[in-house]
Order: sequence, then structure tokens, then C-alpha cells
Amino acid sequence: MKLIENWFSERYSDNLQLSFRVKDQLLSVKTDFQRIDIFDTYDFGKLLTIDGTVQMAENDEYIYHEMITMVPYYMAEKVPESALVIGGGDGGAALRLLELGLKRIVNVEIDNHVVELSKRFFPEVSKSFSNSKVELIIGDGIKYVSETKEKFDMIIIDSTDPVGPAEGLFSPAFYKNASRALNKGGVLVTQSGSPFYQPFALKKAKKGMESAFSGFKTYVAFIPTYPSGFWSFTMNPTGSRKLDTVKTGKYFNKEILEGSFKLPTFVNDILRS
Amino acid sequence: MKLIENWFSERYSDNLQLSFRVKDQLLSVKTDFQRIDIFDTYDFGKLLTIDGTVQMAENDEYIYHEMITMVPYYMAEKVPESALVIGGGDGGAALRLLELGLKRIVNVEIDNHVVELSKRFFPEVSKSFSNSKVELIIGDGIKYVSETKEKFDMIIIDSTDPVGPAEGLFSPAFYKNASRALNKGGVLVTQSGSPFYQPFALKKAKKGMESAFSGFKTYVAFIPTYPSGFWSFTMNPTGSRKLDTVKTGKYFNKEILEGSFKLPTFVNDILRS
Repeated sequence: MKLIENWFSERYSDNLQLSFRVKDQLLSVKTDFQRIDIFDTYDFGKLLTIDGTVQMAENDEYIYHEMITMVPYYMAEKVPESALVIGGGDGGAALRLLELGLKRIVNVEIDNHVVELSKRFFPEVSKSFSNSKVELIIGDGIKYVSETKEKFDMIIIDSTDPVGPAEGLFSPAFYKNASRALNKGGVLVTQSGSPFYQPFALKKAKKGMESAFSGFKTYVAFIPTYPSGFWSFTMNPTGSRKLDTVKTGKYFNKEILEGSFKLPTFVNDILRS
Repeated sequence: MKLIENWFSERYSDNLQLSFRVKDQLLSVKTDFQRIDIFDTYDFGKLLTIDGTVQMAENDEYIYHEMITMVPYYMAEKVPESALVIGGGDGGAALRLLELGLKRIVNVEIDNHVVELSKRFFPEVSKSFSNSKVELIIGDGIKYVSETKEKFDMIIIDSTDPVGPAEGLFSPAFYKNASRALNKGGVLVTQSGSPFYQPFALKKAKKGMESAFSGFKTYVAFIPTYPSGFWSFTMNPTGSRKLDTVKTGKYFNKEILEGSFKLPTFVNDILRS
């Protein structure tokens, strides 16, 4: 009889937490940027946390990664061929972009440890980094967009929450520089947090987007391992291209492409405030 | 300095739980049907649990109650005037139906304690029971639909999960009897659980609906205090009526009326299996 149970808990506030029973803690490391932990959970497979917040779970990463890539891919005015990923050190966004047929992906991740740990513990997700179409740069995404001369059809901000190292990725200055690296008709998208627990993240993303473009569009997805189970993404407004068919993922499909932009009133209220 | 913290945890599986920090446990009672607890939480106000599962939280009950009433209200072929609510002993469904203008509501709740505790701890929700348009019957909803001669424009199954007292509310026999109590062009809707943690509930609801009607329609909502934060509702297919405007709730709006029927692929897969 096993008497000791081990649980990892993420605090969503001082007064609410989600707890995963874990078989084992596989690793804990403090890097120059953040603390990273890897757990082997019973219900969600391997779990990567940064500063105590769930970044990726083996069993539901498909939702986040499909939604941060497939929605903007089909919202771009022309079929995208190139993408810049800021963050995304697990390789999951790059992987979906490769599956969508992109020819060049530059992935700028600030923390080499995220990449190394993903290669070790999430090989099926991080295998994108061994594809020759993917250029991995370990460096500061904020600096990168302020200096690059290259332009992309898609820019994906796959960051942690807007505190700590990712704070600058929600600033108007960053959005301005990023918009200069975007081809005409292209799409820039950022994860913008849980509308329920992090309305400030959504507001910041909206304001940043509005500072660089003529407006914004927000869409949402259900992600069980993220706070409140409900997540937002915010992009620049784009014209649309004619879509005959769209690829179907395990979450994403043509109906979701349309339905994910239809927001509950309380989310509209956050975006209007 | 307060050294003791009190938490209520709902286990979603043996290996996952959501925990609410509580100011106090206000009541715990074992009735003939179930165990009911009332907590005063920090983040979600008062919380009603049945057999350890969250039924209603003061701060997000609007999502569940709007979605189980407003969506079917606008999906009925004619403007509904009468409704039968099975379960719903907190009065929240009846309250929204009154706000929508219904003229007669019969509410059949099996457990008198749910009603009494809601009157005491959730007076703003349960005030519907003092409205003369609402007839409250303490009794078995399964028996009621098998005996009633009355017909309704809407039938709402606002039950607990399909284990214990609510199990029969997911059976083909119940759906058959309920469909006989439904006016032509009317709508029958049931909560059908978390697609993520309770795919069996969704499958049961779908099969029950198909046994009594020509098919089914499933729609979803984000509910932070329910397992995985993602909930499903299943109704009979209906013709549609022309809608000029729809009322806007704190969650529900015209966009949600359309978007909530657009399902992730993994939900479609459950419904096809």
C-alpha cells in the first residue's frame, strides 16, 4: 500500500488551485530567467511548468499549439510561407507550422534550458527543431524584432504570462517593431491569457495590438490544464482569403475557426474597458 | 496571524482536483438523496456542492443558468411560453426563464433540501420560487413526465451527473416520456457533463435524445468551477424561428448562440463514437 501521494498544485489565485497527482518530479532547474520543473503526472502525461505555472502538458498541448498556429494560418490574407515564433521553446508551435506546410520558420527562444528540456522530455513535440526549415535562435525576441531586416507572413508570440521575462512582449514598443517585421496581409498573434483570471493580460495584448495595427481580434479556446480552462489569443485584424477546406486537428476544425471568435459577454466587456 | 487554512477540493479524477479556499463551511447535511454542503469561498462567493461536486457558485452560476435557458429559448420554433424544469432546485433556471418572459414554469425537484438551502443561502437565485408563474413540485421528475397530461414549449433537465438519483434522467425511457410532454416545435435540453472528464454523460445524453427525436444538437460553454472548465448541453434538433434581436446576458449573446454549437474535433469524436 502506497501511503505517500505527491501532488503538484498551480495556484490560480491565493484562494484557488488546480492539483495534479504526480508519479514523479523528473527535474527542477533554476535558469537565468526562470524556474523550470518537469513532472510525470497520472492524468496529463509529462508536465512542463515555469515558475509554478503549467506551460505544457503532454495530453492537451495539442489544443494550445493548434489554436496558436492554425487559426492565424487560415486568417492570413495569403497562404503563409514563413513564420517567426517568439518563445515557443518547446517546439510545439514550430511543429504545427511545419505540418501546415510553411517553408521557413525562425524560432527565437530566450532560455536555452526550455529547448534542451523539451528535447529530452518531449521529443515528439520538440522534433521540429531538427527540421532544416526551422532556424532556432537562442536570444531575446524583443531585441530580435527590433533588429531583424527579415519579414514574415506570420509572427507568433508564444510566451509566458506578462510578468517577468515576457513582460516586454506585451508592450506597444514590441508590437510596433513586430509589425514592421510582418509582410503585408500577414498575421501577428499572441497568447493573451485567461480572461477569467488574467484580464490584465488580455487588455495589454489588445492595447499593444491596437497601437501597431488598425484594431485587434480576440479568439478563445478551452484548455483544461490552463487557469479556469479557458484561454484567449489576440491578433491583428486581417482581410480574409478564400478557404475551400481547412485541415482538421484534434481540436481545431473549420467550425472552430469561426466559432472561436464568438466571445462571451464578459470577455467583450474586458475588451471594451 | 491565521495559521489554519481551510480548502474544499473537488476531485475530478483520482489524480486531479480543483481546490477552493473557504472562509467557512456554512452547512453540511445528508438528505434521503444526497449529501449537500455549503461553503463560503474567497474567490467564488457561496458554493453549493452535492456529493462533493460543485453544483453552483455564486460568482459564475450565471454562465450555466444562462446557457441552459437562453440557448434553447432562442432555438425553439415559436416563442416559448411554458417550461418544465426537472431538477433545478436552486431556482436559477426558473429565474432566467422568468426574465425571458415565460408565463408558466413547472419546476420538479426531487430533494426539498436543495430548495430550502437555496432559499436560505442563495436568495437572489431562488427568489424565482416566490413568483406566481412558477409552480414548484417536490417530487420525482421521472415519474412526473410519465404521468403528466400537460405539454410544454421547453423542457430543461437541470440535473446532477448521471450517477445516483439523476441516472434515470439520462435513460431512453425518460426521454421518450419527456418528448410526449413537449409541444410541437418545442425544445428539450439537458446538461450533458464535461466532454473532457465525463464523455459517458455526453454519450448517454446523445443516445437518449436520438431515441426520442430525429437527432440531437450539442453546444458548449466555459464554466470555471465545473470539471475542466468546459461543459456541454444537448438538445433535440429544432427548426428555427426568425430572430431580430436576442437578449444579452453576462455570458450569453447572439454570437454565443451561434458559436456555442461549433465543437472541437475531440467533442465531435465523442459524439460519433
